[in-house]
Amino acid sequence: MPESTVHRPLVAPSVETDQLAVDTLRFLAADMVEAANSGHPGMPMGAAPMAWTLWSRHLRHDPADPAWADRDRFVLSAGHGSALLYGLLHMFGYDLPTEELRRFRQLGSRTPGHPEFGETPGVECTTGPLGQGLAMAVGMALAERMSHARYPEITDHRTYAIVGDGCLMEGVSHEAASFAGHLGLGRLIVLWDDNAITIDGAVDRSCGDDQIARFAAYGWHTEVVPDGTDIEAIDAAIRRAEADPRPSFLAVRTVIGHGAPDVAGTAKAHGAPLGADQLARAKEIAGWGYPPFAVPEQVGATCAVLAEIGAGDRADWLDRFAEFAAAAPERAEEFTRAAARILPAGLAEALSGTVGDAPRATRQSSQACLDAVLSVMPELVGGSADLAGSTGTSCGPVVARDDYSRTAIAFGIREFGMAAILNGISLHGGFRVFGSTFLVFADYLRPALRLSALMGQPVIYVLTHDSIAVGEDGPTHQPVEHVESLRVIPGLQVLRPADDTETALAWELALTRTDGPTALILSRQALPQDTRAPIDHPGTDSQSAAPGGDLRTVELVATGSEVALAAAVAEQLRADGYTVRVVSALDRWRYSPAPSAHTVSIEAGSTTGWAGLVDLAIGIDEFGHSGPGAEVMAHHGFTVEAVLTRIREYLGGTR
Amino acid sequence: MPESTVHRPLVAPSVETDQLAVDTLRFLAADMVEAANSGHPGMPMGAAPMAWTLWSRHLRHDPADPAWADRDRFVLSAGHGSALLYGLLHMFGYDLPTEELRRFRQLGSRTPGHPEFGETPGVECTTGPLGQGLAMAVGMALAERMSHARYPEITDHRTYAIVGDGCLMEGVSHEAASFAGHLGLGRLIVLWDDNAITIDGAVDRSCGDDQIARFAAYGWHTEVVPDGTDIEAIDAAIRRAEADPRPSFLAVRTVIGHGAPDVAGTAKAHGAPLGADQLARAKEIAGWGYPPFAVPEQVGATCAVLAEIGAGDRADWLDRFAEFAAAAPERAEEFTRAAARILPAGLAEALSGTVGDAPRATRQSSQACLDAVLSVMPELVGGSADLAGSTGTSCGPVVARDDYSRTAIAFGIREFGMAAILNGISLHGGFRVFGSTFLVFADYLRPALRLSALMGQPVIYVLTHDSIAVGEDGPTHQPVEHVESLRVIPGLQVLRPADDTETALAWELALTRTDGPTALILSRQALPQDTRAPIDHPGTDSQSAAPGGDLRTVELVATGSEVALAAAVAEQLRADGYTVRVVSALDRWRYSPAPSAHTVSIEAGSTTGWAGLVDLAIGIDEFGHSGPGAEVMAHHGFTVEAVLTRIREYLGGTR
Repeated sequence: MPESTVHRPLVAPSVETDQLAVDTLRFLAADMVEAANSGHPGMPMGAAPMAWTLWSRHLRHDPADPAWADRDRFVLSAGHGSALLYGLLHMFGYDLPTEELRRFRQLGSRTPGHPEFGETPGVECTTGPLGQGLAMAVGMALAERMSHARYPEITDHRTYAIVGDGCLMEGVSHEAASFAGHLGLGRLIVLWDDNAITIDGAVDRSCGDDQIARFAAYGWHTEVVPDGTDIEAIDAAIRRAEADPRPSFLAVRTVIGHGAPDVAGTAKAHGAPLGADQLARAKEIAGWGYPPFAVPEQVGATCAVLAEIGAGDRADWLDRFAEFAAAAPERAEEFTRAAARILPAGLAEALSGTVGDAPRATRQSSQACLDAVLSVMPELVGGSADLAGSTGTSCGPVVARDDYSRTAIAFGIREFGMAAILNGISLHGGFRVFGSTFLVFADYLRPALRLSALMGQPVIYVLTHDSIAVGEDGPTHQPVEHVESLRVIPGLQVLRPADDTETALAWELALTRTDGPTALILSRQALPQDTRAPIDHPGTDSQSAAPGGDLRTVELVATGSEVALAAAVAEQLRADGYTVRVVSALDRWRYSPAPSAHTVSIEAGSTTGWAGLVDLAIGIDEFGHSGPGAEVMAHHGFTVEAVLTRIREYLGGTR
Repeated sequence: MPESTVHRPLVAPSVETDQLAVDTLRFLAADMVEAANSGHPGMPMGAAPMAWTLWSRHLRHDPADPAWADRDRFVLSAGHGSALLYGLLHMFGYDLPTEELRRFRQLGSRTPGHPEFGETPGVECTTGPLGQGLAMAVGMALAERMSHARYPEITDHRTYAIVGDGCLMEGVSHEAASFAGHLGLGRLIVLWDDNAITIDGAVDRSCGDDQIARFAAYGWHTEVVPDGTDIEAIDAAIRRAEADPRPSFLAVRTVIGHGAPDVAGTAKAHGAPLGADQLARAKEIAGWGYPPFAVPEQVGATCAVLAEIGAGDRADWLDRFAEFAAAAPERAEEFTRAAARILPAGLAEALSGTVGDAPRATRQSSQACLDAVLSVMPELVGGSADLAGSTGTSCGPVVARDDYSRTAIAFGIREFGMAAILNGISLHGGFRVFGSTFLVFADYLRPALRLSALMGQPVIYVLTHDSIAVGEDGPTHQPVEHVESLRVIPGLQVLRPADDTETALAWELALTRTDGPTALILSRQALPQDTRAPIDHPGTDSQSAAPGGDLRTVELVATGSEVALAAAVAEQLRADGYTVRVVSALDRWRYSPAPSAHTVSIEAGSTTGWAGLVDLAIGIDEFGHSGPGAEVMAHHGFTVEAVLTRIREYLGGTR
C-alpha cells in the first residue's frame, strides 16, 4: 500500500514559476470577473498562493479522469471564489477551455457563478451556501476512511478544502468540525483563507473567535501561516498536516484582492469587478504583460508535467486495482457495482419480506426495511442525528475512529451537519446514504437537503414523527407545514407511506432513484395494515373500483396515517349511498384526481398544495398542541366523525 | 443605580432546606412525567441542584408579575426538561397550581410537553428545538445591554440559561456563543447540564469537544463545577461569573436521572417515565416520604420568602421608575410606549414620503422605508447576516461592546443565530426588531422563523434577491420554492411588494402587526413604479375596473417583480379583445380570485400554492441557472411574449 505522505514526486516548481503561476491564477480570475462584469475577484487574488501550493505540490488527481475513484478531493467551500477553481481546472488541463472562462457566469456556460456539481469537470460539489463545503469535505473524508476500511488495497486519498470567514461563522462549520474531530478524520486538511474581510466590512465587526483555539477544542491539528503568499511556508504546513493523525486546520493569513492597489484588504474587493483601471494597475504593479486570460507557457508546461504525474498516479492505481480484482474478484465487483450505484440482486425480495399483518408505526416498518436492505446492500451507510432508536434507523455499532468499517454513523445532535456530510459521502461515491431525524427538524437540515436536490445526490432522508399525532411533545415537535414545504423543493421525491407494503415500496423507490434525494415521511404512531387494495401503480392504487363519475362518486385521497382514516370515512359515505374510491398518494406528485368525481384530500398538514388538486382539502393549517396524540388529532378535526361532517357539508353544498 | 452583584440579600437557605428543595424539584418532575406517562425525567433530576441554586440565590424576579421589565430572565434551553421549569414556577408561586402539574402534557393545560411562551406564566420563551434557547438567551442579554444604554436608570438585569449537550452540538450554539463573546455580553450566564448522555447513548459516541476550551475561544469566562450536586460550589461559580465582565459558561457535571437506581447515568433516564417501581425506589433511597406532587412546608416557606424578596426588588424598581419618570417624562413615556409595542406617531407620514417615481429595486425602496421608520421609531433595532448593504438594511454604525446604544446589529454570517437572537430581543421587550439576508438563505434561519411564528413575536424578516432574477450567482442563490415554503408556515405574514408604494405599505403592515412575524420579500433588480392603480385594499387593488365576468374577462394576479410583467401582458391581451384586470397580491392569503373571470397567476417561483386559487398558474418549479438576470428569467419563460403565449394557449383551450 502506498504511503500517502510520500506519494508526490518532489518536483516542486521553481520560485519563479510559482510566482508566475500564482499571478496567472489571480489574473485569470480577475479577467473572468471583469468579462462577466459580475463576480468575486478578491478571494481568488488572496488565496491563489495557497491554492497553487496545494495543487502543485499535494493534490493527487488526473485531469484526464475527473471521476477516478482514488483521486484526492478538493472543495472550495468559499464558493464565491469560483473563478479561482475554474482557473486551476483550466491550467491543469481539465476540459475547461479559455472560451469557457470567457463565458464566466453566462447562461449555459461551464463556469457558473458558483461551482455547480455536474456542470464543470473537476468540480467536486456545489458550493456557495456558506459552511456547507466544509461539511461536505468532512463527509468526503469520512467516506474515504470508510472505503479504506472496506477496500484498503485501492483506497488511499485525502480531502482538501479552502474555507472562508463566512464558512467558519456558519453554525454548520461547528457541527462538521466537531464531528470530524471526534472521528479523527486525519485525511482532511482545511485551509482557512484568513483575510479578515466579509461583505459588510471587517470580520472584527461581528466576530472575535480564536479559530485556532476553537478547532483545537474539536481535537484538530492547527497551525498558523502568517504570510499567505509564502509558498514554502504553506507547503511545509500542509506537509505537517498530512503527517498528523488528526484533521488539520491551517489559518493562512491573506489579503483580499491582493495586488489591486486601491481595494486590496477591503470589502470593496469582495464581490464586484475591479474595473478596467484597477485591474490594469494591478497587472502593471505585478509586472504582468500578458493579454487577458493568458496562461504563460512556463506555467502551462509546469501544469502539464504535474498533470502527467497525476496520470501516472492513476495508472499505478489501475495496476493496483487489476491486482486487487485478480486476487479478490467478488470484492472488486462489489466495489465497481457500488461505485456505479447499481443495486444489488435480491433487494425487492428482501423488502417484500418485511410486510406483515400486525399494526405498527411506519417508522417501525422502515426499520424492518432498513434491516432487510442492509442484508443485501453493504454499501448503504448512514445514521441519525441522535434519534436512531426513535426513527427506526438503528443498525448496529457506530463508526468510530478505531473502526471505520461499520454501517451506522452517529451524527450527534447535528441535523444540518448530518445532511451536508451525507451529501459529501454520496458525492465521494461508493456508498448510498441515509440520515434520520424527526420531520419537524427537517427545517434544521433544509439548506443541505436543497443541495442534495440541486446536485442530484440520492440521499435518503428518514423523517419520522410526521404529524401532530406526535402528541405530548407539543407544537415544537409537531410538523404541520413540513411535508408541503418539502414537496416544493425541485427534484426532491417525497413519499409518505401508509403501511408496511407502502413503506417497502417507498424504500425501493428511494433506492432505485440514483439521481436525486428522497424524503421518507413516517409515522410515530401505529397504523393498521392493508386498508387499501394491493398497489397497481405507485401512489394511485384504488380500494374500490373507480366507476364512471357522477354526482354520487367520491374520491378520497390521503397519505400515510390518514389512509386508514380515509378508509373508515369511506365506509360511512358508502352507507350514505355514495360510490367511494380511496387513493393512497404515496407520492403526491404522481396523483391525478379522478376527472368526474368529488375529490377530497385528507392529510394532517398544510392544505395549500392539495387545494389545487381536489375539490375539498382537509388538513391542518395551524400549529398543533401538546396532549395525547389521538386527542390532539381529534382537537384538529382528524376523526372519522369530524372528517365525515366536513365532507357531508361539502357534498350537501354541491347538490 | 444598584450594583447587581449585590442585589440579592444574603439569605441563603439552610443546607437541609436546600437538599429538601432539590428533592422537591426532582420528584415534582418525576411525578409529572409519571402522571402523564410521557416526558423527560432525567434532565430535571440531574439539573435540580443548579436550578435551585440559581433560583434561590441569584434570579431576581417577582412571581406576582412575570412581565416586570427589569426581571432577570431564565431560559431552559434544554426544553425537554420542562418539568423542572414547571416545578420551579410552581414552588415560587407563579400562577401554576398543583392541578396544572397533574395535567402535565395534557391538552389545554398550562404545562405542555415543552415550555411554550404564552402558555405558562413565567416561561420566557418556547424551547425544545435544541440550541435555540441559548441563542434566544443571547438575544435577551443583548436587549438588556441595549436597553441599559438607553435607560440606565431602570435597566439592570441578567440572563441565565441552562443548556444541554444537544444545545451545544447544534450549530446555532456556535453562532450565538461566538456573537455573545464578540459583544462581551457579561450579563449572560450559561450553565451546561454536563451529563454526558444523549437520547441515543453516551455523548462520546458522537462528540469529543472540549467545551470549556471552545467557549474560551469565543471570549467567554469559563469554569467547571465538578460536582453538580454541590450547591455551594455552583453558587460560588455563579458569583464569579456575575463578577466577570465576559459572558460566562459553567460546565456543571451532573448525573442524568440522579437518584433513580437502575437508570441514573444512562440514556434510559432521558425520555421515558421512570415507571412506578423505579420512582418508588428513588424516593425511598432519597428518604422522600411525601405524597406525589408535594412541596414540603419548609420548602414552600423558603420559596415564599424568596418570592417576597423578589417582590421587594420590583417595588424598589417601581420607585426608581417613578423617580425616572419624574425626571425624564418623555423618555419614560417612550420606554412605556415601546414596551407596549405601541407605534409612534408619524409613522404613516414618514413612510409615505419614501414613494417616488424612479424605477428602483424594492430592496432599495425598503432601505428608504427603514430610514424613514427609524427617524420616528427609536425602538426599532436590527441588522443583517452580513448583507446590510445588499439587502437595504444599512442603518449606521453597529452595536459594539463599547457602545450598545446603536441601532444596527452586525450579526455576522449567522442567519440562524440572527433569527434566534431577534426572537430573544423581541421576547425581552422594549424593542421591535428586523433582520436581513438573501431570500434563498431563509432556509438557514427557518427553524427560528418558525419559533417567531409559534411564539407570536413580531420579528420582521427582510429577505431580498427574491427570484431567479438574481442572475449570475446561480441556483444556489436563486430562490424558487422559498416564497411558497414561507407561506405555509402558520402565522407568518408574507408580503411581496411590487414598487415603492407597496413596499411602504408592507413595512406599515409589518410594524402594525404586533403578534406575529412578517417576511418582506424584495427584489434585487429595479422595478418600475405604479404599474398598478392606487391601492384601495391591501393586495387586491385593480388596475382596470373589474367588469361582470364573462368568457372575455381575464384576471392576472401577480406579486412583486411580476406585477409589471403582468401589466405588460395585460396590454397585449386587451389588444386581443379581452377585458383584463391586474391584481397585485401583496399578501397572497388576502387574494380572492374573481368568481367569473379566467384567472392566471404570474410569480417567478413555485406554482403549488397558486394552483388552488387560479385557473392557470405560471411560475417556476425547477432550479434556476447562472447568467444575467434578464436572460435567466427569459430562459424560464418570464418574458411578456412567453407568458402571453402560455395564456393564449390556455384561453384558446377554454373557448
